[in-house]
Amino acid sequence: MLHNLLQEKKGIIFGALDEHSIAWQAARSIKAAGGNFVLTNTPIALRLGKLNQLAEECQATIISADATVVADLENLLEQAMTVLGGKIDFILHSIGMSPNVRKQRSYGDLNYDWFLKTLDISALSFHKILQTAEKLDAMNEWGSIVALSYIAAQRTFPDYSDMAEAKAMLESIARSYGYRFAKNKKVRVNTISQSPTHTTAGSGVPGFDKFYEYAERMSPLGNASAEDCANYIVLMFSDLSRMVTMQNLMHDGGFSSVGITEQIVDTL
Amino acid sequence: MLHNLLQEKKGIIFGALDEHSIAWQAARSIKAAGGNFVLTNTPIALRLGKLNQLAEECQATIISADATVVADLENLLEQAMTVLGGKIDFILHSIGMSPNVRKQRSYGDLNYDWFLKTLDISALSFHKILQTAEKLDAMNEWGSIVALSYIAAQRTFPDYSDMAEAKAMLESIARSYGYRFAKNKKVRVNTISQSPTHTTAGSGVPGFDKFYEYAERMSPLGNASAEDCANYIVLMFSDLSRMVTMQNLMHDGGFSSVGITEQIVDTL
Amino acid sequence: MLHNLLQEKKGIIFGALDEHSIAWQAARSIKAAGGNFVLTNTPIALRLGKLNQLAEECQATIISADATVVADLENLLEQAMTVLGGKIDFILHSIGMSPNVRKQRSYGDLNYDWFLKTLDISALSFHKILQTAEKLDAMNEWGSIVALSYIAAQRTFPDYSDMAEAKAMLESIARSYGYRFAKNKKVRVNTISQSPTHTTAGSGVPGFDKFYEYAERMSPLGNASAEDCANYIVLMFSDLSRMVTMQNLMHDGGFSSVGITEQIVDTL
Amino acid sequence: MLHNLLQEKKGIIFGALDEHSIAWQAARSIKAAGGNFVLTNTPIALRLGKLNQLAEECQATIISADATVVADLENLLEQAMTVLGGKIDFILHSIGMSPNVRKQRSYGDLNYDWFLKTLDISALSFHKILQTAEKLDAMNEWGSIVALSYIAAQRTFPDYSDMAEAKAMLESIARSYGYRFAKNKKVRVNTISQSPTHTTAGSGVPGFDKFYEYAERMSPLGNASAEDCANYIVLMFSDLSRMVTMQNLMHDGGFSSVGITEQIVDTL
Repeated sequence: MLHNLLQEKKGIIFGALDEHSIAWQAARSIKAAGGNFVLTNTPIALRLGKLNQLAEECQATIISADATVVADLENLLEQAMTVLGGKIDFILHSIGMSPNVRKQRSYGDLNYDWFLKTLDISALSFHKILQTAEKLDAMNEWGSIVALSYIAAQRTFPDYSDMAEAKAMLESIARSYGYRFAKNKKVRVNTISQSPTHTTAGSGVPGFDKFYEYAERMSPLGNASAEDCANYIVLMFSDLSRMVTMQNLMHDGGFSSVGITEQIVDTL
Repeated sequence: MLHNLLQEKKGIIFGALDEHSIAWQAARSIKAAGGNFVLTNTPIALRLGKLNQLAEECQATIISADATVVADLENLLEQAMTVLGGKIDFILHSIGMSPNVRKQRSYGDLNYDWFLKTLDISALSFHKILQTAEKLDAMNEWGSIVALSYIAAQRTFPDYSDMAEAKAMLESIARSYGYRFAKNKKVRVNTISQSPTHTTAGSGVPGFDKFYEYAERMSPLGNASAEDCANYIVLMFSDLSRMVTMQNLMHDGGFSSVGITEQIVDTL
Repeated sequence: MLHNLLQEKKGIIFGALDEHSIAWQAARSIKAAGGNFVLTNTPIALRLGKLNQLAEECQATIISADATVVADLENLLEQAMTVLGGKIDFILHSIGMSPNVRKQRSYGDLNYDWFLKTLDISALSFHKILQTAEKLDAMNEWGSIVALSYIAAQRTFPDYSDMAEAKAMLESIARSYGYRFAKNKKVRVNTISQSPTHTTAGSGVPGFDKFYEYAERMSPLGNASAEDCANYIVLMFSDLSRMVTMQNLMHDGGFSSVGITEQIVDTL
Repeated sequence: MLHNLLQEKKGIIFGALDEHSIAWQAARSIKAAGGNFVLTNTPIALRLGKLNQLAEECQATIISADATVVADLENLLEQAMTVLGGKIDFILHSIGMSPNVRKQRSYGDLNYDWFLKTLDISALSFHKILQTAEKLDAMNEWGSIVALSYIAAQRTFPDYSDMAEAKAMLESIARSYGYRFAKNKKVRVNTISQSPTHTTAGSGVPGFDKFYEYAERMSPLGNASAEDCANYIVLMFSDLSRMVTMQNLMHDGGFSSVGITEQIVDTL
């Protein structure tokens, strides 16, 4: 089904941890569509996860990098160009973590050092990747860069806490840097706002199951799965979407455009 | 490049007139992607345009229909299913016309019969197509329906006149019927909000050239062409975007997310 | 509390029927804020409702007019200027009716003559008022015009049916004409998107009570009442909001910015 | 004109520096509307500015506080309640500063320590104020809190740099904390997205004059002034807007809803 959409395209995938990760499914779909890539994650994620398995399946090289550390990103991009044999066509940013959510701090009792950490990991890392890629002239013209977001950037989901701010900032970076990268290199930058997904990270949010169930009932097509999202990422990396940039693309089974559904009414 | 994305898919394309039409380019791209379709337009457009040429090129049947007349749509859908040998997978609505714009009536001096005509042709026709398709059970599950829109639905472009209201209504129909069709048949309905395009219809809007030039300078990737739009339509008809519904998708080189560009500043 | 905010201001209020109407409460608040006005509604509404009671309470003149008939609007505006002793400072449009909703037609089985009727009454009437007011030069500079809308213009509420399209169009007219009126006369035009409200019209929508209850649980401040809305209208008519135009203003206790609430989660 | 709208209301105003500041004009309007308040700014701003002059004019107490330091905010809120004789009804956050903008770093060459500083000063400070106010139970029920934003949170203005991300985050905090504060104390939280304004801070942005001129030509009512904004803030602090929360309110002469104007077309 994926039809060689990404043949001869080279990229970097951030954030695959295990088979529940959207980035993991994206890697598979991209491979099936003919793309080649480097996989990257932090040293600790590489130890805890099973990225080797994915790397083997996709014949991909793993390069360790902390996406909040510019020197790591420089090394990653340079090595990736060497390994892949040229400049980069696509980058997937699938990184998010909030110490405040992990430690279940109330939104009225946030730790501000952790808040800055949330922002650095989940949003600023995206700017660092973009800026480093531009400085190293690592992107091919008409390349495509995607980061994964969530509708909490537009509407409040109380348990999502300071990740809402991180996602709002992430989407803003996509617009701001998207402008710059389009002008300089015809590279496009977008975010995909995905349904709640049973990833290892997502499931860590308190009340995630209720959350997921609610979105399922509010989405006329149901929640989009990690596999669906992976396919949509392939489209956004393909040349057929080359004039789409600086957008936040809802991939949610219709959730964002629904006011109420019969399924919710029936529970009242 | 189009990779058989639409292999074995069957559809209907409304609104191709000549080679400047987005629908014309869409037909070509869809054909190249493996899709089959029926072409349709009003009797008068069939006389004035050169749709035969496109039909020949794409090995497509032409069926005449006025999209504001339900009986015509019933006939069209039934014939299309016969010709194509089964239910429909995709529909493209590329129809818009405003008598008030054509006759260059000021927005402060609109003729209200013409205003209703604008709405009927440019927006209500979309509901009629959707309702008729559902009543005849003409759509396959996971089918995809797209209508073409313009950012005048969100922001005012004075010369666009009552077409702004028509596009706002068109996008609303996509949401409203998208909900219903998703629930009933897993069919998705979206609008694509396209850059100003040098179609025969578009060029008829007074001041179109200035308009086009402004959008060109405000879009970091430049205006999206009819060919680009055709490719994006293929993506939206493919199975890889199956969880995207009830959305208005900006296909505009970044225009919608730009506040100002250096190119505009330089003219001040 | 209303502090003479509208002292010496003169206006026209469309759509008051009985004490449940937002327009009825608006009339009271505007009067309390020092404004004078003419009340208007269709002949049939004047017979069925009890507008005389409100007119007496507010020392207001009633002028009958069908807002879909330009000649009626011309007469209304001319008479209003005579009665009030000068040009108009504010207009409230609180008009909406869908035959399809009244007759409980499914959104998949709409009558299209009725659909056009819905649009004419609920949306096009607003353009007719604006165009007539401009042609007669009936507005004072820095005047303010408000129409009431609902969030169904942005998100689907299945039972709201073709009123969703009417509200989308109404909001578009506010933008389009707002541009024109600002340029020509410094008059501003906005819509207020109000919580579901127990008006006589609102309560006619099937399933309204469930609808209302859901919004109540999804709004952290609860649903805004007709009285709250009346106060907000006073603000939008006052000189203190003179630079706000072409906006759709959410007046909804927070509903539009909420993704989920604990109250809804608890019902799952 | 301000009509005692804020009689007996008590508040805190952050960010007045000199008579060009929006916060300075807000203080004057709030005073004229009957409100009392404490003025606050950082020690260095107190030294460099002329806040004493404003304090005298408004019979207001000045309390020094760095809004990024929670201990300072605790002290401020406690002292303010003492000085004002009770809990707080309104807070104005008018704080923004980017070291990257000041030092004219390109958006493709940002210093990340400075980026975090931008976020801490311009956005996180708002959360700190809200959290501290809630912890100290410093707000009266139905209180109103406003922060000043800019449309760069939605669309890219290249010279605005990392302040775009700060404003996106600020607006997200207004939604997230607005939900919480509404539930707990019926306090509303909104942002006002103001036209470019000739403040001392605003004028520091490179290219500000071109920027201002462009917005002037794109806004059918022209740019909103600091005085206009001050009046609108009074409305948002008054009881007449009590059901408006979690919103970003455009106060911009129509800029945000305009696609193009004749004034811009004429320059092409």
